[in-house]
Amino acid sequence: MALVVQKYGGSSVADASSIKRVAQRIVTTKKAGNDVAVIVSAMGDTTDELLDLAEQVSPLPQGRELDMLLTAGERISMALLAMAIANLGHEARSFTGSQAGVITNSTHGKARIIDVTPSRIQEAIDQGHIAIVAGFQGVSQDTKDITTLGRGGSDTTAVALAAALEADVCEIYTDVDGIFTADPRIVPAARRIPRISYDEMMEMAACGAKILHLRCVEYARRFDLPIHVRSSYSNKEGTWVVSDPYSEGTEMEQPIISGVAHDRSEAKITVVGVPDKVGEAAAIFKTLADAEVNIDMIVQNVSAAATGRTDISFTLPTADSQTALTALKKIQARIGFESLLFDDQIGKVSLIGAGMRSHPGVTATFFAALADAGVNIEMISTSEIRISVVVGQDDVDSAVAAAHHAFDLDVDQVEAVVYGGTGR
Amino acid sequence: MALVVQKYGGSSVADASSIKRVAQRIVTTKKAGNDVAVIVSAMGDTTDELLDLAEQVSPLPQGRELDMLLTAGERISMALLAMAIANLGHEARSFTGSQAGVITNSTHGKARIIDVTPSRIQEAIDQGHIAIVAGFQGVSQDTKDITTLGRGGSDTTAVALAAALEADVCEIYTDVDGIFTADPRIVPAARRIPRISYDEMMEMAACGAKILHLRCVEYARRFDLPIHVRSSYSNKEGTWVVSDPYSEGTEMEQPIISGVAHDRSEAKITVVGVPDKVGEAAAIFKTLADAEVNIDMIVQNVSAAATGRTDISFTLPTADSQTALTALKKIQARIGFESLLFDDQIGKVSLIGAGMRSHPGVTATFFAALADAGVNIEMISTSEIRISVVVGQDDVDSAVAAAHHAFDLDVDQVEAVVYGGTGR
Repeated sequence: MALVVQKYGGSSVADASSIKRVAQRIVTTKKAGNDVAVIVSAMGDTTDELLDLAEQVSPLPQGRELDMLLTAGERISMALLAMAIANLGHEARSFTGSQAGVITNSTHGKARIIDVTPSRIQEAIDQGHIAIVAGFQGVSQDTKDITTLGRGGSDTTAVALAAALEADVCEIYTDVDGIFTADPRIVPAARRIPRISYDEMMEMAACGAKILHLRCVEYARRFDLPIHVRSSYSNKEGTWVVSDPYSEGTEMEQPIISGVAHDRSEAKITVVGVPDKVGEAAAIFKTLADAEVNIDMIVQNVSAAATGRTDISFTLPTADSQTALTALKKIQARIGFESLLFDDQIGKVSLIGAGMRSHPGVTATFFAALADAGVNIEMISTSEIRISVVVGQDDVDSAVAAAHHAFDLDVDQVEAVVYGGTGR
Repeated sequence: MALVVQKYGGSSVADASSIKRVAQRIVTTKKAGNDVAVIVSAMGDTTDELLDLAEQVSPLPQGRELDMLLTAGERISMALLAMAIANLGHEARSFTGSQAGVITNSTHGKARIIDVTPSRIQEAIDQGHIAIVAGFQGVSQDTKDITTLGRGGSDTTAVALAAALEADVCEIYTDVDGIFTADPRIVPAARRIPRISYDEMMEMAACGAKILHLRCVEYARRFDLPIHVRSSYSNKEGTWVVSDPYSEGTEMEQPIISGVAHDRSEAKITVVGVPDKVGEAAAIFKTLADAEVNIDMIVQNVSAAATGRTDISFTLPTADSQTALTALKKIQARIGFESLLFDDQIGKVSLIGAGMRSHPGVTATFFAALADAGVNIEMISTSEIRISVVVGQDDVDSAVAAAHHAFDLDVDQVEAVVYGGTGR
């Protein structure tokens, strides 16, 4: 008997009939002889509706109260799902994040999981019940206040709980068939990737692939927990995210490139005329870290000898731009930089693949493909298994298509990236 | 410095602008130098919307899951209210029933409060914060599951918390100016009662006055906690419910009749042909108690000597009828009664007043007034300070008006009953 943890997103439980459909699928899994725990997000638009209410009441709601408000969303969906399962003749019990033992720090709105102590869930499973758990939420260790986990929170809850319960697999249900080699809306010839490694999936997630959030893949890697990303609308196999995707019975050659990811959600800030002295860059990024701004790519130009000054560019979530610019303005006099430039009309295109490190020609092929497509590269960043470039936002589609084609992903190969999906 | 506990019902927090108005009122109380704790119901139609969702998912939802679902309602309203207060420059923190220490038994849907341990609320108040607490909900002592308190639950939460915090007053805000001598929709000349005793208020509540629920008045009497029922739309004094309303500085003669209450929510069941033996009535009412049916009035006819059988009639909430009839059918053979009659087209009209016991003519005047109005009496029940009659549902309005007029409540006197209000 296996223990299967399943996670259903907001679009899978958008209304009563969707909830009944999901209940049916859960019961099928249970009937097949598995123990089942289910993590569920808030129904469809619930979160947006609650945020809208909050906005009507207060322009700047406190984090603690916003978390209290938003966690009502999963409470509704999980109770309804438990009822729908009971209606099919199986015992189901719903649990809040707090009841499920999801212990977090106190950073409201983006709390981190510190510990998972799922004794009530284990007890329910031992009694033969199906446990339904609210995703996205927990309880703070220090203040005992209700917290939310922020973006990717429900996936992270699912993986964290699956790890704590020593589940055999964590199934993440979504509205597509798995992870694709590129966004099929941009590249119609994109293909589903049957198996991918944690490392590649993390690079994909970090580079804009939205189906799985970076945090949840990190968590799964740490506990070596297999994730199966699949559609809640079919019984087809989806994409397995595992530690070594190519070891088990696959005869095909290790693919060089897994997929092409893209991300339009970032902006670029350039700090112009930074004095080229030790510690200036550190001061800038310490300021940004103190303001809790997450930086992605960083580029520092070679110092112009004549002026003794340099420019530092970095990318960040567009939503954090205001915070970052305000924080930087405050230290302008102390650091002595000249000005700040801001550009939110950018996009990031990333080529990901474990084979990259052993094939030095990849970078050259990538850049040539972009050049042929008339795409100008503004910034470059690389890792062992990834090359990312920042381009103009209007060039993203053609850059993705050009790269996908240049690496023969259009034809019969086996790889990945992503589109759509929800933030929770 | 006083400690004021305020309770706002669903209609007082129906939308964002109502919530802001209530926040303003709370802040005014705080600014006047009081410590404040607030109990809040779910927004307007939230509960009905959630019940509707549950119905779409399951015809017979489990109590545990229904409670989990419904408690999302107060979570939303309390978080929004805390935000609105913070927006006015005062610290507010919201707490679920469980966080507020409202400990109940495990009877989902109508849990009883066992204990209130409001240490987190006291702490918040001690720190100068305004505490916002979800009404209607608690956590079960045995299973640690979330429970709801059923009808009158939010008022009961308010009074129970006020008692535990040793508050100076519990203010119940509603959409009318207080308790009236009769429903003003039936008797336009009805008047607000400035002060009323717990006992009279309990009789009123038991007899259909909907503004305060019986449970909450019982609770207040036990702890001798003053309740002030008043409008959330004005600053006028409302009705004070206290232990001895006539002792403090009032020179007027003790009124004979406080008011006329009515109730259309009950049905009547008659058990026909019960063998007139010791223990038969006990068996019938034990069966009903085991089925958790609340019985109101009971009438047993004199046994017909010829048959050795008697009829027993009782009234009960119409909502419990099906349960009661099913339970009784099961024991029909064992008890040997002949049949069951059911009538939900009834209404109860009650005359309430502490002065009644010393004025034997009251009953005669009451019945004469009903006779003059052409109203037929089906059942009668009396207590020290109340006379209730069951009449045809269509006769309720004329019976109320006739009684109100017969006891001179239309003119310049000072008494009570009720209308409107929500169930929570």
